Amino acid sequence: MKAEIINIGDELLIGQVINSNASWLGEQLNKIGVEVKQVSVISDQHYQILETLKDAEKRADIILITGGLGPTKDDITKQTLCDFFNTKLIFHQPTYEDVEKLFHSRGLKVKEINRRQAEIPENCIPIRNTNGTAPGMWFEKDGKIIVSMPGVPYEMKPMITDFVIPKLVRQFDTHIIYHKTILTQGMGESSITEIINEWENNLPANFKLAYLPQPGIVRLRLTATGDNLIMIREEVENQVRELQRIIPDLIFGYDNDKLEEIIGRLMKDKGLSLATAESCTGGYIAHLITSVPGSSVYFTGSVIAYSNKIKETVLGVKEETLKQYGAVSKQTVVEMAEGIKKLYGTDYAIAVSGIAGPEGGTPQKPVGTTWIAISSSHKTHAQKFLFGEHRGRNIRKAAVTALNELRKVLTRETL
Amino acid sequence: MKAEIINIGDELLIGQVINSNASWLGEQLNKIGVEVKQVSVISDQHYQILETLKDAEKRADIILITGGLGPTKDDITKQTLCDFFNTKLIFHQPTYEDVEKLFHSRGLKVKEINRRQAEIPENCIPIRNTNGTAPGMWFEKDGKIIVSMPGVPYEMKPMITDFVIPKLVRQFDTHIIYHKTILTQGMGESSITEIINEWENNLPANFKLAYLPQPGIVRLRLTATGDNLIMIREEVENQVRELQRIIPDLIFGYDNDKLEEIIGRLMKDKGLSLATAESCTGGYIAHLITSVPGSSVYFTGSVIAYSNKIKETVLGVKEETLKQYGAVSKQTVVEMAEGIKKLYGTDYAIAVSGIAGPEGGTPQKPVGTTWIAISSSHKTHAQKFLFGEHRGRNIRKAAVTALNELRKVLTRETL
Repeated sequence: MKAEIINIGDELLIGQVINSNASWLGEQLNKIGVEVKQVSVISDQHYQILETLKDAEKRADIILITGGLGPTKDDITKQTLCDFFNTKLIFHQPTYEDVEKLFHSRGLKVKEINRRQAEIPENCIPIRNTNGTAPGMWFEKDGKIIVSMPGVPYEMKPMITDFVIPKLVRQFDTHIIYHKTILTQGMGESSITEIINEWENNLPANFKLAYLPQPGIVRLRLTATGDNLIMIREEVENQVRELQRIIPDLIFGYDNDKLEEIIGRLMKDKGLSLATAESCTGGYIAHLITSVPGSSVYFTGSVIAYSNKIKETVLGVKEETLKQYGAVSKQTVVEMAEGIKKLYGTDYAIAVSGIAGPEGGTPQKPVGTTWIAISSSHKTHAQKFLFGEHRGRNIRKAAVTALNELRKVLTRETL
Repeated sequence: MKAEIINIGDELLIGQVINSNASWLGEQLNKIGVEVKQVSVISDQHYQILETLKDAEKRADIILITGGLGPTKDDITKQTLCDFFNTKLIFHQPTYEDVEKLFHSRGLKVKEINRRQAEIPENCIPIRNTNGTAPGMWFEKDGKIIVSMPGVPYEMKPMITDFVIPKLVRQFDTHIIYHKTILTQGMGESSITEIINEWENNLPANFKLAYLPQPGIVRLRLTATGDNLIMIREEVENQVRELQRIIPDLIFGYDNDKLEEIIGRLMKDKGLSLATAESCTGGYIAHLITSVPGSSVYFTGSVIAYSNKIKETVLGVKEETLKQYGAVSKQTVVEMAEGIKKLYGTDYAIAVSGIAGPEGGTPQKPVGTTWIAISSSHKTHAQKFLFGEHRGRNIRKAAVTALNELRKVLTRETL
């Protein structure tokens, strides 16, 4: 099965938006054994869309199109698809009702221009848009599949995972590609590769390993191919177990696991509560924790003490501590953690104080120096980390490291 | 001048690497008035590279190719280019000396496999690689330019900025494309298009308008083409001034402006200070504010009061207020704003309380209901918003709306 992706939108050609849709789509198709042979990025022009479609049709069995479905004048994909399939737009009542529902839920009236969102080519199967107004469209022509979807990722992605992928799997017998991603925290790519070198070299021929680093996290994607899903899955699980024996401390989860969700489950299960006291992370840890639905059950809140005065007056860090050791020190971060735990009355607390940069570094405490404390009813322990030079990445690294330190403490203490 | 970009590499097709090269190249070419008409991402296969090149040659004046130049077996671009131009590889001594120098500087010896990096097609002008071993290659054929470069961004980028762009500018009289992006907050795409409909319809024929929505923000990208930069710039500025007259309240900035940076500049200029009291946004507003380098000058910190108890004990919201009006109410959010302003001793404060979802909605206060208060020394005013159903987007929408409300107050009060 060969696929091609066509991304429509001038914003992709002039460099205003990076084409993340193509790589995401490639990944999803890959998982079900469909090989993406080509990606074409083109502008919102009738002639070019038509020509690109015709070329892709000659080469591919499946064509996924994103973009150009908005209600405004610059979006012409729908009309072009009608010309390609030699059909016309019809008004689709169920789609219109979805649009109406969405507008009403926001207290708005449907305008004439939005009515046009419910017009679809006569020969398509509409795909519901659960996060917007423009429906996706599934076409079949001479045994080939052509799907057109909005370019906005959060509108397009559910269409792929809930509709397109299941329908493709049902319609075609695809070769099996099995992925498992092992999530690690606490060590860089090149250090990990040294430690797991022997294991990696001994992987069977149908296995492939990829290193996918993010700030503070390295994901190891293990891919195996074959014909029998049950056998492949077992082979992969065996290799993962082997890897767990080699780097048990680094692995915090698998596939789409998120540290903030893992922590959430641990706290919920044990009926525990949590607060954070943040300086250099500026609320980013609290943001990650509260991005999890239902986090209000265990997360009480946070004090962001960006100024030293607030560390003293609100969190109760002693004036002498700040004077003697400075804001970025073991002593201060421990007092921050114990201060917030007391003020918010929680079981656990995270405190972080560091120099995110670009300013504020000294030879003794260069940019990236960060103290992280985890406090529980048992004790408070603090650790020093040296991240990099980039402000945004330092904030992210400090946040994921803090969450992982809390996870380790929770796992130990609540066994 | 029309250009096409060809990116070669399987890693781009299976979604392992996001194709950031294409958008970066598009931006660079755009700046010198070269319009990118198409981007093609293909795999390292002789036939596919050849076919894609032949197609692109029919449509474009300039073709930029990245990838497939490594020393390993899977990289076949160089041989394919020889076939395309009907020429052969020759050994290029100066390139070999560059390779040698690079290896010696790293304390390494040149291996036989790296010797091959100095082989280039006979008809090309080599482009020095200052950050790696594979040289770039500049070809000319029937008045068209074809450039092949490594796929590694830090090897490719200097070739473009130091060699390709200057040479293109010297060789061609390029046509000018001028972009200006107008950033709006507070209204959806379909409502804006209704209001600016007449202005949009009256845009000159050399103008194009695109709507680029993000959670809480709609960017309007105005593009004009022509021969004279000064004239085009003036035409665009005139149209933007006209638009400002139509939607003055919605526009908060231009091009790469960010709300948190605009606020930062306003506060710094006037020597003002700021704190936030956040409930449903869970620290995201503080995170945006502190993502700006130097924000510690005006940002004191935040209290994230996820639980009602903290709203009372730390922020000083009255028990009766919470009981009578609930946490998501005008009264509560006003007391939160005034409470944090007093506790942190700042000039301004933002407070937000809402129902981010997915749980917690009621018929009277559905998911998405959000109260935002801005407090200054003059007064505290609060406003109710109804966002959508998606937790992550509600948090983002509430945050950018709150920042924009603060910007409006700052602009009014500090005129």
